Amino acid sequence: MGQLLDKIISPKSIHGMDLQELRELAKEIRELILSTVADNGGHLAPSLGTVELTLALYSVFNFETDKLVWDVGHQAYAHKILTGRRDTFHTLRTKGGLAGFPKRSESKYDAFGVGHASTSISAALGLLIASELEHKDNRVVAVIGDGALTGGEAFEGLNHAGQLKKNLIVILNDNEMSIDKNVGALSEYLSQIRLAPQYRKAKRDFEELVKKIPIPGLGEKVLKASNSIRYGLKSAIVQGAMFEVLGFTYLGPVDGHDIKAMQDIFRRVKDEMAEPVIIHVRTTKGKGYKPAEESPEKFHGVGKFDKYTGEVIKKPAPKSYTDIFSKAIVDCAKEDKNIVAITAAMPSGTGLKLFAEMFPDRFFDVGIAEEHAITLAAGMAAGGLNPVVALYSTFAQRAYDQILHDICLQNLPVTICLDRAGIVGEDGATHHGVFDLSYLRHIPNINILVPKDENELRQMIFAATAKRLPTIIRYPRGAGLGVKIVDNPTHLPWSKAEVISKVVGEADASIFAVGTMVEVAKKAADILKSHRIYVNVVNARFVKPLDIDTIYEQSINSKLVVTCEENVLAGGFGSAVVECLADSNVVKPILRFGIGDKFVEHGSRAQLLEDCGLTADNIADKIESAYYRLNRRNIDTTTDGGFREDL
Amino acid sequence: MGQLLDKIISPKSIHGMDLQELRELAKEIRELILSTVADNGGHLAPSLGTVELTLALYSVFNFETDKLVWDVGHQAYAHKILTGRRDTFHTLRTKGGLAGFPKRSESKYDAFGVGHASTSISAALGLLIASELEHKDNRVVAVIGDGALTGGEAFEGLNHAGQLKKNLIVILNDNEMSIDKNVGALSEYLSQIRLAPQYRKAKRDFEELVKKIPIPGLGEKVLKASNSIRYGLKSAIVQGAMFEVLGFTYLGPVDGHDIKAMQDIFRRVKDEMAEPVIIHVRTTKGKGYKPAEESPEKFHGVGKFDKYTGEVIKKPAPKSYTDIFSKAIVDCAKEDKNIVAITAAMPSGTGLKLFAEMFPDRFFDVGIAEEHAITLAAGMAAGGLNPVVALYSTFAQRAYDQILHDICLQNLPVTICLDRAGIVGEDGATHHGVFDLSYLRHIPNINILVPKDENELRQMIFAATAKRLPTIIRYPRGAGLGVKIVDNPTHLPWSKAEVISKVVGEADASIFAVGTMVEVAKKAADILKSHRIYVNVVNARFVKPLDIDTIYEQSINSKLVVTCEENVLAGGFGSAVVECLADSNVVKPILRFGIGDKFVEHGSRAQLLEDCGLTADNIADKIESAYYRLNRRNIDTTTDGGFREDL
Repeated sequence: MGQLLDKIISPKSIHGMDLQELRELAKEIRELILSTVADNGGHLAPSLGTVELTLALYSVFNFETDKLVWDVGHQAYAHKILTGRRDTFHTLRTKGGLAGFPKRSESKYDAFGVGHASTSISAALGLLIASELEHKDNRVVAVIGDGALTGGEAFEGLNHAGQLKKNLIVILNDNEMSIDKNVGALSEYLSQIRLAPQYRKAKRDFEELVKKIPIPGLGEKVLKASNSIRYGLKSAIVQGAMFEVLGFTYLGPVDGHDIKAMQDIFRRVKDEMAEPVIIHVRTTKGKGYKPAEESPEKFHGVGKFDKYTGEVIKKPAPKSYTDIFSKAIVDCAKEDKNIVAITAAMPSGTGLKLFAEMFPDRFFDVGIAEEHAITLAAGMAAGGLNPVVALYSTFAQRAYDQILHDICLQNLPVTICLDRAGIVGEDGATHHGVFDLSYLRHIPNINILVPKDENELRQMIFAATAKRLPTIIRYPRGAGLGVKIVDNPTHLPWSKAEVISKVVGEADASIFAVGTMVEVAKKAADILKSHRIYVNVVNARFVKPLDIDTIYEQSINSKLVVTCEENVLAGGFGSAVVECLADSNVVKPILRFGIGDKFVEHGSRAQLLEDCGLTADNIADKIESAYYRLNRRNIDTTTDGGFREDL
Repeated sequence: MGQLLDKIISPKSIHGMDLQELRELAKEIRELILSTVADNGGHLAPSLGTVELTLALYSVFNFETDKLVWDVGHQAYAHKILTGRRDTFHTLRTKGGLAGFPKRSESKYDAFGVGHASTSISAALGLLIASELEHKDNRVVAVIGDGALTGGEAFEGLNHAGQLKKNLIVILNDNEMSIDKNVGALSEYLSQIRLAPQYRKAKRDFEELVKKIPIPGLGEKVLKASNSIRYGLKSAIVQGAMFEVLGFTYLGPVDGHDIKAMQDIFRRVKDEMAEPVIIHVRTTKGKGYKPAEESPEKFHGVGKFDKYTGEVIKKPAPKSYTDIFSKAIVDCAKEDKNIVAITAAMPSGTGLKLFAEMFPDRFFDVGIAEEHAITLAAGMAAGGLNPVVALYSTFAQRAYDQILHDICLQNLPVTICLDRAGIVGEDGATHHGVFDLSYLRHIPNINILVPKDENELRQMIFAATAKRLPTIIRYPRGAGLGVKIVDNPTHLPWSKAEVISKVVGEADASIFAVGTMVEVAKKAADILKSHRIYVNVVNARFVKPLDIDTIYEQSINSKLVVTCEENVLAGGFGSAVVECLADSNVVKPILRFGIGDKFVEHGSRAQLLEDCGLTADNIADKIESAYYRLNRRNIDTTTDGGFREDL
């Protein structure tokens, strides 16, 4: 590890260290973060940016009793290393190892689990109220990035905390960008706070003028009166008007890599202030690692890389779904000038960067503000445009009400492309996009499309933007299957499933699959065939409107109905099929494959899919068992009473 | 109607009217609103407060091309009356009549449908961008209340609009309260803007001092330099620092009942300003109707009342579910000092007012900020408290991600009480709480309880606050059944259904019902019995965890399985039962009753439930048909292939 890092037994170990030692320790922590993330992938740039901030916090506060809440939590690696997780840090983001985000079950120092942006102020306020009601006098600190601050919930939290006037400490970790370049008026305002030379000059000029007043005492009086105006004004733009207005005392900006400067301000706040305080700390993303300082966006969340060159290690792989989306939406926009594109702080992640370059006037990055993104799109659609919103599945959860209320209730033509649907892998429980089919399917007027491969994704983007209905297209993280991409996709029949393989006569089973599971189902069918069990495979394509006719036809001609999806089982695609069969009076045994009723932790996509039973082998195996059970039952008994068995 | 109101052919009709006529017209509009709402119920106080504002807007702008977006929309009655709906206004909120909120399908003047708070700025910005891309030069106006401004999405919208620097006009309709007394630092800030005597005095004092400077010219210089400071400061609290920081030019405050003053400021903005502008308008809720001015909260959303006395016309009815919740939570809090209660601007509507009076230190009204409400509760729970959040079902949609991510993922003990679940009646499509079972059921770790009557609600509140798990209790709007309330409820067995009636031997059907539908199912069973069809009735109580054993036992001993719920069919309770049977290998015909796959419009609860087929007669009728169909099938054929028939 490193000489000093080895000495860390508990976070308190750093209390005895002098500044020189802390600076040395920062270097050692940085080295551990760098080498671990180079091996495992992870959120490098944000975590490198907060090493000194973390040390300054831990050297002033006692987080055995005080509480620390990191917003999003992708900047908390130093925090993990200091709090008993140095020796397991190499397991970061691996299955069974440390999570990439703070997690209550992992450490008592993880006061609140995070992963989605803009929750820290609310959670910290809750923790503070709890302490107060229990007559404890500990302090609670929330650390929030300038990007996360644009999320509406952060504002709700500030507004409430400011009104309650409790001694909450909010640290604004301002690195002038969240994931991509930050947007929004607030961001400009933060820049103004940083600069404000205009104000400084005006103030200097004024004071010099006042000095010239020859009447004894009058100069001071004028100065004092002038200060009173400013006091009357109370909040000045150079002193955090925005935050002062919301009831916070604003301090800063302070250099987030100067441990001493931060210690001073933290001590002052801890010892002297009992009101809501916001401390503006300026940090550099990727600090101390040149490739990350130069390309913080590339190293925000990064895969394995060569730590000496900064080159990301890429295995040869087919184009990703994101790449396909990126190009398809540009191709559609060339033809339809009404297409506009919206992202919430993720132009690179969602692939909209190309669109932004090609059509800057038709591209809108709203910052971390999914609710606004959706209502904005609804407003644009009401105004006659053809908006496409690209979000990660997990973050779209923030805008459930807006999707329902602003888009679907008004039946407005907005296409929402949900990337990272299904299991995302190493980012874990807070980031899997495994709920979207369930939280969207029940919304009237919605259309939900799930491509089986990257070419079908392209086809669906063309179809949805042409159809102009409230439409969701959800697709997984990472590489496609490597299929041929058709430049001018044929017309995709709306609400029609694709029968991929069909047995002559009655089938032993019909497998209805969506998305990634179509390929898995095909493989399962091949395995079963080699065991002389013959199944139909259907690519459902539309989770809504469901192709009821195809499901009906295939089901009544099969002994068993099987559904496969990369989504939770409750309320998802299989649930839709089961509902459809019940409503159609088709009485059949049914096997459903999907994600069970628990949160999926982190690990590689392949590992996690296997854990969830979403492999061809497992699916074939379970179908085979059911096949023999059903045949036995048909021979043994005539009752249609059920029997229970765990999948 | 009234002399002037009769003359309104289109909104342009008022362009020729002088001030005196407009004031007279305001009176006539007020009278029409008052008498209609007295008959039909509705949002009286907000709509009385905006009559002059509406007239001033329509007299300056041309909303055939300009666009007007009302936030929430409960203040838009005058807007409806002016825009071709005067003669149908008496149908307000009745089935087939005018909706209580702006609705795109109702009028071209309803530029964007609303009902939930804080969306207007986002939607208006979307409409403005659409106009710009189509090279139209119309203006877009959003009207937002001070209450709705506390919602995070409004902030997201302001932040983005301020950055884009487009000529959006936001009117802040400041009536010093949203539904209940407004909360939050922002609200205090708005009060400061109104008063700011401190600033005025300081400025006066300063100027007088400067006058005393005897050197010719120096006084002016000092004054000018001082102004430069203020210019350098740029935004002063008396001039809307908050909004200036976000990139808006702030104008006001202006008297929202002074048509002339508003016209002047609107004209100036329309003719001279091309940047984002916020105009602060002060209005009085309930203006012009004394009972409503005195009790704006009572007349926010009100039932039928006597317009001469202001007395609400109450039919004798059992205590409401809200009343029962109100007392039960206080009773629980007396025993458990860790219970804290949170509401989002609805202390009266949710019944938490009593709790607030009894335990002011343990009560938190966060304003219209459902996301923050949930994360705050999660933070409190992480800190050891036992929080109860009371929301309306429809508004909880805003916090789906927070319920999933902050409460359930961390398995924190928060009890969320969802009032107004199911059909709410006259408030219509934007307010029905018919999605909650579907958008919550698939979340791991969640518990969902639905009481069959008001006594069971009390029992569930006792059980949930004792159990300390992530728990939802959802219950309907309005009166209970009038059952006896047990003061000290017996222990409610977790995850256990209640078998209400059971046939000896095999039943013709088993009805599994939740909530309000249990009583309906009992009546349906009685009807069926008189037709010699014998069914079991089960009160499921827990939508999650489902009582799998009871469902299994009852189902295998029945010819038909029936589910009943006041929720959408997709992904709801019936869907859970169907999934459960499929997973348990119970192969049975199934009939599901619930709300179909479309948005339910407004009307009385009874009318709408009938439209949705959720009556004892319809349920009995459909079960009877299925009964004869199944018996016929058993005789005619041995195939288990299905047949399809619409319910």
